Amino acid sequence: MLDACAAAIRAAGAQLLDVKPDAAHHRTVFSFAGEPAAVKAAVLALFDTALPRIDLRRHSGEHPRVGAVDVVPFVPIDGVTMADCVGMAKEVGAEVSKRHNLPVFLYEEAAASPARRNLEDIRRGEFEGLTAKLQQADWAPDFGPRAPHPSAGASVIGARMALIAYNVNLLTNRLDVAKKVATAVRQSSGGLRFVKAMGVDLADRGIVQVSMNLTNFEKTPIFRVFELVKREAARYGVSVLESEIIGLVPSAALTASAAWYLQLDTFSDAQILENRLRR
Amino acid sequence: MLDACAAAIRAAGAQLLDVKPDAAHHRTVFSFAGEPAAVKAAVLALFDTALPRIDLRRHSGEHPRVGAVDVVPFVPIDGVTMADCVGMAKEVGAEVSKRHNLPVFLYEEAAASPARRNLEDIRRGEFEGLTAKLQQADWAPDFGPRAPHPSAGASVIGARMALIAYNVNLLTNRLDVAKKVATAVRQSSGGLRFVKAMGVDLADRGIVQVSMNLTNFEKTPIFRVFELVKREAARYGVSVLESEIIGLVPSAALTASAAWYLQLDTFSDAQILENRLRR
Repeated sequence: MLDACAAAIRAAGAQLLDVKPDAAHHRTVFSFAGEPAAVKAAVLALFDTALPRIDLRRHSGEHPRVGAVDVVPFVPIDGVTMADCVGMAKEVGAEVSKRHNLPVFLYEEAAASPARRNLEDIRRGEFEGLTAKLQQADWAPDFGPRAPHPSAGASVIGARMALIAYNVNLLTNRLDVAKKVATAVRQSSGGLRFVKAMGVDLADRGIVQVSMNLTNFEKTPIFRVFELVKREAARYGVSVLESEIIGLVPSAALTASAAWYLQLDTFSDAQILENRLRR
Repeated sequence: MLDACAAAIRAAGAQLLDVKPDAAHHRTVFSFAGEPAAVKAAVLALFDTALPRIDLRRHSGEHPRVGAVDVVPFVPIDGVTMADCVGMAKEVGAEVSKRHNLPVFLYEEAAASPARRNLEDIRRGEFEGLTAKLQQADWAPDFGPRAPHPSAGASVIGARMALIAYNVNLLTNRLDVAKKVATAVRQSSGGLRFVKAMGVDLADRGIVQVSMNLTNFEKTPIFRVFELVKREAARYGVSVLESEIIGLVPSAALTASAAWYLQLDTFSDAQILENRLRR
């Protein structure tokens, strides 16, 4: 199953970067990249491959899901704009809904209205609640029929910035400090707009962690998050041991941090040798 | 002339990044990149094109020079190692000396002995002093005859790290402070090993600058230079206004600075999305 999906993505001409299966979640994340045409072809091939093989009527797992291909975010990198990604999300959404008679919701930057931006709102009720949800006045899909696909449910397709999984480890075993810092820096409780954060106990190391997702590294950059975490921790006499990025990070997120700390006021990304080479 | 050289570089399959002619120096710098085979072919093509067109017997300029193709540094980028570049310098040096009956000196990382590392030492006496120099016991060339090419002199070929032209502007008009800071941070007067520095008056802006060349950004990284300049300036009550990178900079020099300031202790360059894409 996973091999067939991976083969379909590669055969369409996209570069498969990562496959992350999770048994408890009963769910697999495929990350792939390439020229826009190849990525679009790969998403269509993924639907063609996965839909005949997955039946949500016989599926359970810890992670909420609304469809066999649950969510497809297009992420801009390397010269592609967010507007390009929104356009791709709409084209692919229209095409898969037609090809498979599947309801499709557009989310995040591709959402038709603010009420449709948030993935959790669209997924609420899950596959099992989909027939009823699609009949509600507010929940007509953006493409496709107002009834779920019998085995594949619906899909959520959209465009968003690359997520950065970013953690700061504090030199203390006081979980209350990590929680207070998380509360201070995250949007939901009044902090920085594109930060989700929680305090986590790393008991085996005798330290605590502020574990974060940065959902828009251009508008809420890593360096600002780090400096604010450091300042809030210092308020409790606690210093920062280290920070860590989990998984992949766009080069621009790091070069922006270098430029800020080095006070490179006139710096342009065109000065980066590798960017010049790629042109 | 310059167009013919540029065309020869491109025709060999290398990517021409920059052409910097300088009338006062009477000298032009060509920067190009590519796969090792293409870059070697481009250097050979450059010699084939330039040597019939340049006669140093009728050449003068402010910049010291020893040959028509004066100096060729191979610089490692993007997965190529310094050892690869040393190998390329030796192969190309042997080939051009044979093809054009030209004395070739190997310098920097490709030098056969410490006395041959420094470009200024090899160039001392210039084209006009070359006949006498080549007869000295210490100055047999690494390849080719012990007499200059009549019109093209000799060439200096080697391997070195990418240079970073890096300046820090100080919020003062006191040139003596910029000079003291430059003296403190540069190798020649006891500072950091791979830093050349001088104090410069930016009179039109009413500020001064510590103008530097960083000759090995892996061993003496930008962030360490910046922090030391900042500390030395603070000693005189002067703060840093901004810093600037002139021209191109390898991505790794910036990501290393981001990792240092953000305390990313377990970070690997393989986590950079664009690096993954290029594999």
